[in-house]
Amino acid sequence: MTTSNTTETTLFMTTENLLSQWQGHRRLTRRVIEAFPEDKLFDYSIGGMRTFAEMMKEIIDISGPGIRSIATENWENTGGFDKHTLDPEYQTKAGLLKLWDQGTELINAYLPLIPESRFQENIVVFGQYEGITFSSILYFIDNEIHHRAQGTVYLRSLGIEPPAFWNRD
Amino acid sequence: MTTSNTTETTLFMTTENLLSQWQGHRRLTRRVIEAFPEDKLFDYSIGGMRTFAEMMKEIIDISGPGIRSIATENWENTGGFDKHTLDPEYQTKAGLLKLWDQGTELINAYLPLIPESRFQENIVVFGQYEGITFSSILYFIDNEIHHRAQGTVYLRSLGIEPPAFWNRD
Repeated sequence: MTTSNTTETTLFMTTENLLSQWQGHRRLTRRVIEAFPEDKLFDYSIGGMRTFAEMMKEIIDISGPGIRSIATENWENTGGFDKHTLDPEYQTKAGLLKLWDQGTELINAYLPLIPESRFQENIVVFGQYEGITFSSILYFIDNEIHHRAQGTVYLRSLGIEPPAFWNRD
Repeated sequence: MTTSNTTETTLFMTTENLLSQWQGHRRLTRRVIEAFPEDKLFDYSIGGMRTFAEMMKEIIDISGPGIRSIATENWENTGGFDKHTLDPEYQTKAGLLKLWDQGTELINAYLPLIPESRFQENIVVFGQYEGITFSSILYFIDNEIHHRAQGTVYLRSLGIEPPAFWNRD
């Protein structure tokens, strides 16, 4: 049992709330990946931006491994965000979806293992990005929402209706 | 003084953390509005989507008034998301930025007034959207990130480099 002074800080949400929210985002982002035709996922872009597959490789490389490393305090073998570009699994939609699901499993397994006291501590993620632990985790999620939204513009420009933003089931 | 059992729930972040994060997003979104040429803000779109001005009108109508209404538990005169379309202030970039800043002030003023106990309570926002209070507030923020990201694709397709996603100062 701990005691907190609610006149100084108020709890906005618990770690369980955060995980539940993120799981909803992961489901929606997975549907956006699925909505792409296989070829467009890997060769379509607007305004010189990356393909949606490249954006999702970034999210795959950051979110699951990042949460595992925050929980274990071991950052070995993470941060090489370009190293997967040539991996065969990253070259097909089925492969990306499999890696996506593996990332979701890492989040589900490791986020609950991070001690509460750590969320307000300073951290350096992937050996280079300084922040406070809670804000670094929110950055992972915000980055997913950001790139997913860019993917929805790609879909619209291809004449494909994106999965509904409000549906997180 | 209150007592909480940390074996059941852990605090991910405080309301102060949430407000600070959101303020960073508001600053970044404001810069994305500013980055648009005046005419493109109101007449440019991709794939049949709304203009960026229309998307930002939605965020302006939801976020500030939504937080004020959650704090005051008074939802009168909110929710008419189309009623501002013809208002003169919504027809210029300077007008949108002024309304944006007014919305930020509402968030800054009213978010801290929401009692901690309310965040885990069920709520119906704008008379129609059911949720838990913390998740409804996160939805406001996620919706801002989502539409801002769509605006960055518009900018790229116009040959304009968007403001950096990581910079929230």
